[in-house]
Amino acid sequence: MSIKIQPEAIANLRGFELPERLGFGTVMAPVMFRARYEDGCWSSGELVPYAPLMLDPAAKVLHYAQSCFEGLKAYRNGSGAALFRPERNAARMQHSAERLCMPPVPESLFMEGVRTVTAYCANLIPANSGESLYLRPFLIGTQPDLSVTASSAYDFYVIASPSAAYHPGNMRLWIEREDSRAAVGGTGDSKVGGNYAASLQSIARLKERGYDQSLWLSPSNRQTVDELSGMNFFAVMDGVLHTPALNGSILEGVTRDSLLTLAREMDIEVHERDIDIDDLLALVRSGTCSEAFACGTAAIVSPISELGDDNGNYKLNSAPGPVAEKLRAALLDIQEGRSEDRFGWIQRVEAAES
Amino acid sequence: MSIKIQPEAIANLRGFELPERLGFGTVMAPVMFRARYEDGCWSSGELVPYAPLMLDPAAKVLHYAQSCFEGLKAYRNGSGAALFRPERNAARMQHSAERLCMPPVPESLFMEGVRTVTAYCANLIPANSGESLYLRPFLIGTQPDLSVTASSAYDFYVIASPSAAYHPGNMRLWIEREDSRAAVGGTGDSKVGGNYAASLQSIARLKERGYDQSLWLSPSNRQTVDELSGMNFFAVMDGVLHTPALNGSILEGVTRDSLLTLAREMDIEVHERDIDIDDLLALVRSGTCSEAFACGTAAIVSPISELGDDNGNYKLNSAPGPVAEKLRAALLDIQEGRSEDRFGWIQRVEAAES
Repeated sequence: MSIKIQPEAIANLRGFELPERLGFGTVMAPVMFRARYEDGCWSSGELVPYAPLMLDPAAKVLHYAQSCFEGLKAYRNGSGAALFRPERNAARMQHSAERLCMPPVPESLFMEGVRTVTAYCANLIPANSGESLYLRPFLIGTQPDLSVTASSAYDFYVIASPSAAYHPGNMRLWIEREDSRAAVGGTGDSKVGGNYAASLQSIARLKERGYDQSLWLSPSNRQTVDELSGMNFFAVMDGVLHTPALNGSILEGVTRDSLLTLAREMDIEVHERDIDIDDLLALVRSGTCSEAFACGTAAIVSPISELGDDNGNYKLNSAPGPVAEKLRAALLDIQEGRSEDRFGWIQRVEAAES
Repeated sequence: MSIKIQPEAIANLRGFELPERLGFGTVMAPVMFRARYEDGCWSSGELVPYAPLMLDPAAKVLHYAQSCFEGLKAYRNGSGAALFRPERNAARMQHSAERLCMPPVPESLFMEGVRTVTAYCANLIPANSGESLYLRPFLIGTQPDLSVTASSAYDFYVIASPSAAYHPGNMRLWIEREDSRAAVGGTGDSKVGGNYAASLQSIARLKERGYDQSLWLSPSNRQTVDELSGMNFFAVMDGVLHTPALNGSILEGVTRDSLLTLAREMDIEVHERDIDIDDLLALVRSGTCSEAFACGTAAIVSPISELGDDNGNYKLNSAPGPVAEKLRAALLDIQEGRSEDRFGWIQRVEAAES
């Protein structure tokens, strides 16, 4: 397929100045990639100006949340950029789409979208360590029809945000024993809008209590740890790294998988298993669990300093802890090109002339 | 608050011709009501032409499914129209909004929206029994920002569809034992997009097997009956009417509540309780459960002819059954003005000059 590059997109890029202060995901690049699905076929992709979408008021996405998305980063790399394991995001987005009866975006189209936006925005990628171009591919059902059935038409977009490093600092987690972010036999292992909407109430409640993120428990037993919204959970006990096993309600994080690979390379013992929250709290209290951290594309590796619930606070001895620090450095060294790409995780993208 | 009526909306109404064939929720009225929420305040409402919404590609609703909606009907009533218990929809929409950390639409604004659209579309309401103007109020988070937090800005719309009667016919229900539509501590008792997105996979699977709707089980025990998507479940056993008790994962249907009231008025014994699916199937097989039906705003009362799962089919003796028929007639008689509004369920709306 040939990609159309709209002249207005190039004009937008030429006229764009990166603001001095970048947040994370708040400054949007002035172009985006778009492809449309109708009558069973994908259109060819286009690079177009970043501009409001025109959506029929009866579009399925607005009523029935038929939407899924991905998040990945492009790092500045010499004259171009480096993408980190984008094929994993392409595969996960296919999984999410299928869960909601949406047509999976072909890997080639996903990669074309991500690579085109990265190539044309390469000069907008900030260059300090931890800074990146945050890419947000998303897929929405656009058919105007109020019946509760899958949409017949879809739009796939890739938007991008030149972003500062995302440092949540030492995080205080609230153990969420009331709400669930996803159901057993639900959409927990898919990156779909409804999981995030359901999590907002918990986040609002815990912020009032001075906490930063929810620690979600399994909806099947309300007793074992699942994840944070948008981040996976890790704990270090007696030098061994533990993380919840994938169970259908946990999102399979690309960073999670990468950290497990790096830990094994460092000869750190790794256990993927069910982690009972009360066992964990007892081990934190006794000092056996010395550190805990969360990981995700945005946050990379973020230390957890405290767990809390109605019964009290459980402080971690070290935040950041030595294992988290070591893993974070090893990952960032690969992502930012300071160490060899020994797992084949990096895809180079040359900057496009604009 | 004063409602602005845009001249283009009036022009749209004058130029609109109702097509001969109406489906349910497919023909859209040429006007809609809109109000905006920003900086903690609601704008005054406007009647505007039905037209595509302009949404920033980073709008929260597209990524995190921050959206909720309602469905209600206006019936032709003399020179004007009649709304059925709209205050219940207003209250439920407030509940749904709060679950997703959205500002609840004030009852006065909700009513203004619903009444304005009804008044200006009164002449578009088809007049045969069962036909109506289907009203779809919805609320979406519009702030362009990729962080997983509640939106700071919202749009509230009321769109409408002149609709034929919705007759799903005798429904064959598939007992959904794999997927869940909502989690314990999730959003099951709220009318939010994510519940419907999660249900699409089940619907697609059962259609392939020749079934019409999913019968959802409770996510907490996977054993008791919750609801159909968009409809509540009723069964008649030895002349007694049974329906699942509200348990946090069932949507509190306005039709459900109305039928319970009508049944009590008819001296039909009513049990709101947990209904074990295997007990129910045994009672269907033995003939003790003689009829079952579903109810909702769109479908009113719709007979169930069969329940199925991997173990086989369970046919109901009568579909439609006598209790369903009696309740349907009593409800429709009130809604369409043939019998006295003895419960104060009807709100008259005069047609507006257009």
